Amino acid sequence: MPRIASEDDFLALMDAHFPRQAAGVELPRGDDAAVVAVPPRLCVTSDLFVEDVHFRRSYFTPAEVGAKSLAVNLSDVAAMGATPTGFVLGIVCPDDADRNYWDAFLAGMAALAASHDVPLVGGDLSRGDKIAVSVTVWGAPGASGRFLTRATGNPGDILVAVGELGLARVGLAVLEKHGRAALADWPAATAAHLAPVPRLAEGLALAGQPGVTSCMDVSDGLARDLPRLLPDGCGADLFFPPGGLHPEVTAHAAGHGRPPEKVAFFGGEDYALLATVAPPALAALRAAVPAARPIGAIAAKPGYTLNGSPINERGFDHFG
Amino acid sequence: MPRIASEDDFLALMDAHFPRQAAGVELPRGDDAAVVAVPPRLCVTSDLFVEDVHFRRSYFTPAEVGAKSLAVNLSDVAAMGATPTGFVLGIVCPDDADRNYWDAFLAGMAALAASHDVPLVGGDLSRGDKIAVSVTVWGAPGASGRFLTRATGNPGDILVAVGELGLARVGLAVLEKHGRAALADWPAATAAHLAPVPRLAEGLALAGQPGVTSCMDVSDGLARDLPRLLPDGCGADLFFPPGGLHPEVTAHAAGHGRPPEKVAFFGGEDYALLATVAPPALAALRAAVPAARPIGAIAAKPGYTLNGSPINERGFDHFG
Repeated sequence: MPRIASEDDFLALMDAHFPRQAAGVELPRGDDAAVVAVPPRLCVTSDLFVEDVHFRRSYFTPAEVGAKSLAVNLSDVAAMGATPTGFVLGIVCPDDADRNYWDAFLAGMAALAASHDVPLVGGDLSRGDKIAVSVTVWGAPGASGRFLTRATGNPGDILVAVGELGLARVGLAVLEKHGRAALADWPAATAAHLAPVPRLAEGLALAGQPGVTSCMDVSDGLARDLPRLLPDGCGADLFFPPGGLHPEVTAHAAGHGRPPEKVAFFGGEDYALLATVAPPALAALRAAVPAARPIGAIAAKPGYTLNGSPINERGFDHFG
Repeated sequence: MPRIASEDDFLALMDAHFPRQAAGVELPRGDDAAVVAVPPRLCVTSDLFVEDVHFRRSYFTPAEVGAKSLAVNLSDVAAMGATPTGFVLGIVCPDDADRNYWDAFLAGMAALAASHDVPLVGGDLSRGDKIAVSVTVWGAPGASGRFLTRATGNPGDILVAVGELGLARVGLAVLEKHGRAALADWPAATAAHLAPVPRLAEGLALAGQPGVTSCMDVSDGLARDLPRLLPDGCGADLFFPPGGLHPEVTAHAAGHGRPPEKVAFFGGEDYALLATVAPPALAALRAAVPAARPIGAIAAKPGYTLNGSPINERGFDHFG
């Protein structure tokens, strides 16, 4: 198997997939630092994507690892209502991932980057025992000039979601059990886990709606993420009516004797956007972002209800 | 030993060491992304710092690991002639590094960050088998408005160095052999490896000198880094007169029967700045940056000479 021979060899592989020159890149990668042209206010976010913590090589293709390690960062930019304008990449490479692996990894990442016009302006790599990918992305606000933040909603605001909830958690479960054989029976759920879609257009559109009061991306499940979205002292009343969740969530929940709305509540890694909107602005929001659907409302006191019943268990900790 | 209990626990530890609010930080860490106020042109760089590749826990204190993982990035900003204005941090934590370890690590990193007024605006962490630290730093140009780049010097320009050459390589050798017992006999060399100093004030001053034509930081040794600094088709003539190198370099070389200038040429991880200056501007540069000392000149044709003799071996590859 062809090994990566040197850092220069890897950088050449990077050049084969990522153009060095791009709009806004004054000095491309290859110097001590890149120089980029940026607006006066920039959002910045950084996420790790680590083998056997965030993904398994047994059922992720190299291209999926490359794309998802960028996608989870782009999703944070989407949650800010911003447009990504550049990123840097750090890769820890174990000896058992060969040149073909990284070629496919970079191809997967480059395709996603190109589809959003995000240039790669720098990178570093190191040997190590397992694959670890670090991505830092920055972004600019849209025409509205504003970034969407957390904890800035108000009691009574409607909670809206863009993207499925619980679907990626079902995907994780069936992939852990059956490997890629699960793709046949659970195409949507496995795709949600293997190839999450960053909701960049929708995030930007949300920021353009004046009545939208807060936004985040649901990476750890509603149970863990809602407390991060809501203002201090508030709770939420959530409603997942029958037929409101993805059929694969409903089917998987039924097969395990669980209420599907609990799968939606505790599931992680959906990278759906969760926003809050003042009720008078809901109609305009739904017109501007047709994929946004109401799932509940901010309550004036702490605690959560799910379809009318209190729920208080904890969700998923990537780190724990 | 107290373990890090959760991601929230780690973030609380971060808050204990790094203030969230700082000048230029409009939205501090804790949201999907931070928002920072930035100048129209920004330099960005990212480096990994990985256990058993870049450092060993056997002879690095946790505080030294924290500080060096940031220092190597700040050194890149220094080499651009820029001032660092913010950074994000990704940490892979193995189970055998406890809460005390990370407390000390963050304290070491925070002290260096505070000494240069660089706010930490975001971070992510993950479990993993070995410690890996990813830092992304960005910076603004100084009053001159320019960034210093590589490959923009001219034949005849004087090469100047800020910081010792070869000293960190001696430090690595004695630490690998004796562990921290080496600190007694080799205080400067071990300090150069364990606690390199990013030359930020000097980099900024170099950028302010119009005759300075290029700059980089020497992280892999002159042998590997000079070809990256020099313009295409050029070489260099280097001179390390007796007494021109650090006494610990001279002593270590003598003990191993090596010419000390070869230790300076092949040694890595010094994080010295290496700049080129047009000869008429040298006097002004030496007045502005007293620590800068001439070590040679750019030659009009490829190849290197060291004290008058050709030298063509290759240097150090962190990755190879």
